[in-house]
Amino acid sequence: MSLLVDNIGELVTNDPAPGDGPLGLVPEAAVVLEAREVVWVGPADAAPAADQRIDAGGGAVLPGFVDSHSHLVFAGDRAAEFAARMAGERYDGGGILTTVAATRAADDEALRATAVRLRAEALRQGTTTIEIKSGYGLTVADEARSLKIAFEVSPESTFLGAHLVPPEYAGRADDYVALVCGEMLAAAEPYARWVDVFCERGAFDADQSRAVLAAGMARGLGARVHANQLSAGPGVRLAVELGAASADHCAHLGEADIEALAGSSTVATLVPGAEFSTRSPYPDARRLLDAGATVALATDCNPGTSYTSSMSLCVALAVREMRMTPAEAVWAATAGGARALRREDVGTLRPGARADLVVLSAPSYVHLAYRPGVPLVRQVIHNGVVA
Amino acid sequence: MSLLVDNIGELVTNDPAPGDGPLGLVPEAAVVLEAREVVWVGPADAAPAADQRIDAGGGAVLPGFVDSHSHLVFAGDRAAEFAARMAGERYDGGGILTTVAATRAADDEALRATAVRLRAEALRQGTTTIEIKSGYGLTVADEARSLKIAFEVSPESTFLGAHLVPPEYAGRADDYVALVCGEMLAAAEPYARWVDVFCERGAFDADQSRAVLAAGMARGLGARVHANQLSAGPGVRLAVELGAASADHCAHLGEADIEALAGSSTVATLVPGAEFSTRSPYPDARRLLDAGATVALATDCNPGTSYTSSMSLCVALAVREMRMTPAEAVWAATAGGARALRREDVGTLRPGARADLVVLSAPSYVHLAYRPGVPLVRQVIHNGVVA
Repeated sequence: MSLLVDNIGELVTNDPAPGDGPLGLVPEAAVVLEAREVVWVGPADAAPAADQRIDAGGGAVLPGFVDSHSHLVFAGDRAAEFAARMAGERYDGGGILTTVAATRAADDEALRATAVRLRAEALRQGTTTIEIKSGYGLTVADEARSLKIAFEVSPESTFLGAHLVPPEYAGRADDYVALVCGEMLAAAEPYARWVDVFCERGAFDADQSRAVLAAGMARGLGARVHANQLSAGPGVRLAVELGAASADHCAHLGEADIEALAGSSTVATLVPGAEFSTRSPYPDARRLLDAGATVALATDCNPGTSYTSSMSLCVALAVREMRMTPAEAVWAATAGGARALRREDVGTLRPGARADLVVLSAPSYVHLAYRPGVPLVRQVIHNGVVA
Repeated sequence: MSLLVDNIGELVTNDPAPGDGPLGLVPEAAVVLEAREVVWVGPADAAPAADQRIDAGGGAVLPGFVDSHSHLVFAGDRAAEFAARMAGERYDGGGILTTVAATRAADDEALRATAVRLRAEALRQGTTTIEIKSGYGLTVADEARSLKIAFEVSPESTFLGAHLVPPEYAGRADDYVALVCGEMLAAAEPYARWVDVFCERGAFDADQSRAVLAAGMARGLGARVHANQLSAGPGVRLAVELGAASADHCAHLGEADIEALAGSSTVATLVPGAEFSTRSPYPDARRLLDAGATVALATDCNPGTSYTSSMSLCVALAVREMRMTPAEAVWAATAGGARALRREDVGTLRPGARADLVVLSAPSYVHLAYRPGVPLVRQVIHNGVVA
């Protein structure tokens, strides 16, 4: 069965003709989907016949958002911590352990229900691909079940056993790293596509981080790094050295970090929801872009430091706070996220791409930044099906 | 027919018992509505029987948002101006004339359709009371039809003929003020509850603003002022002097302005969407609150400088950028807005109040700031009817 989407005010393909801007805009366009794929893209008056039709009502159509960084497997709520931080307390990363305790105490059903609910919430807002990390279990059993739930919800699941040293390993970080690289990785790996590490003072240093990533890569996982979030540490350079798909956060970069990213295939994934929700300085997206680095936007959705599932908000913050243009921000939230997940089938609308798209109740993608906070996603098609 | 809302995780009444905080929180509460009014509020286990029931699913319930400042009667789109400004151009207020030209050229149906669409968009996001200004017509006929449309959409309609001196009156501002105070006011007044003026360099000075407000008040309209938006001008002190219901924007305040507001019944209405969308410094809400001024939050929804209809975003920005607590921000977006419109029947949930409420898909009002950008408003009851 084929599906025609027409009466599109502005189509973002991220598949530019030579000489076009990166968004590959097509005016008065139509898209035809069949099964789970895009089969035709072009001007509406040349569109082939299809079995069904969706009228975009003159709204813009874009590839579904690709959120390449989220933490949806957890229990509990840190609203009180958030309110305290907004009232002036400093966030030092210790809050993660609150969620670890709640997650360990929760049964599988509760964890699954939260992950499913948040994934549905993200889908309603246009996120058709989402990466989900473990990292609030920090025992062999709790990381394994967290990964299993993440993988049930999304194929882009990431093992983050090295999120923090849990209290029972206090003062024995190397022992914990050995556990992560050994038994924990073995238990989690069947459900994981990626391995990640929080490379930061107070979490894991460069050697520990390298050990975790190397162990994961040796088992066939792709690497990604929580890098340079709270300080200008070694995370970004480690990510580039190991050929990681993405260095995430990048809030504190030196010149060498920017050069390393620009000269690599490692994507700089920026998560402005985190800076918004922790009242921290935003990454310098302009320096990254001007140097030639590839930038993605993601939510970092988690109960502590960025409890948003809204890619639209990330686009608006990228424009307001990080001086990205609306076009750069929308590209980063779609094609950029796909690069950060090394996916060629999502983040673009061209024949052969997955049939994931979003219809806005606005005539242009610019409105995602121009109309902040307004739920502009009117319709979502995911895997060829109206969600 | 009566309607019971129960299984409420947290009820915000804005009707505190002595010694309680301003939100008047009731845990495990229920609310009973009948016709257009709240008839009962209290603990769920003591609730009276009702004809119908809504299960809040453990979500928080609050009074509907009261958006006391919007400009929904216009034509055209300024997305390109927005993108240019974000790329570094300075906003000097001249952009309003772009919308004036488009509004004058539009027919009534087009203006009505936009206003109705935006009002519906706001209602879906929980705004049950909204003030709507004219101010993009700036001729007798165009202001009169703008007011008529505003009044069709909301009883809280405001005559803003003194938004800017239109080009045909360039160099003859006093002649334009005479027109506003005379023929234009006479034509608009049947459809207006309020009179407003943009008191600012480049718009109207203190004497001109006083003349406009006095003329409106002489015809029975309440006064409100666009005050101290772009500079520390005389707007706030004029608003207080005339007993205006609200001084709006308040981004540039001196000590005397803050003292004047604190010692008056004039509400300081802050519109952080405008600072967000123009990359301008936010008002100092803390100084206002600490001095004892009454603060409201509003969207300033307009196509130039704040094209958001999201009161939730305003709450999140108030907490992140203006250091209001989540409780202060939610109060300001509900009861504060009601004060700014001198309304006693909205902004609270107590017997006799209008049956306007919002059910969140979150257990606490804190989530409006803790989960920025996420559409948390799950259900809206407006005038006793599920919207």
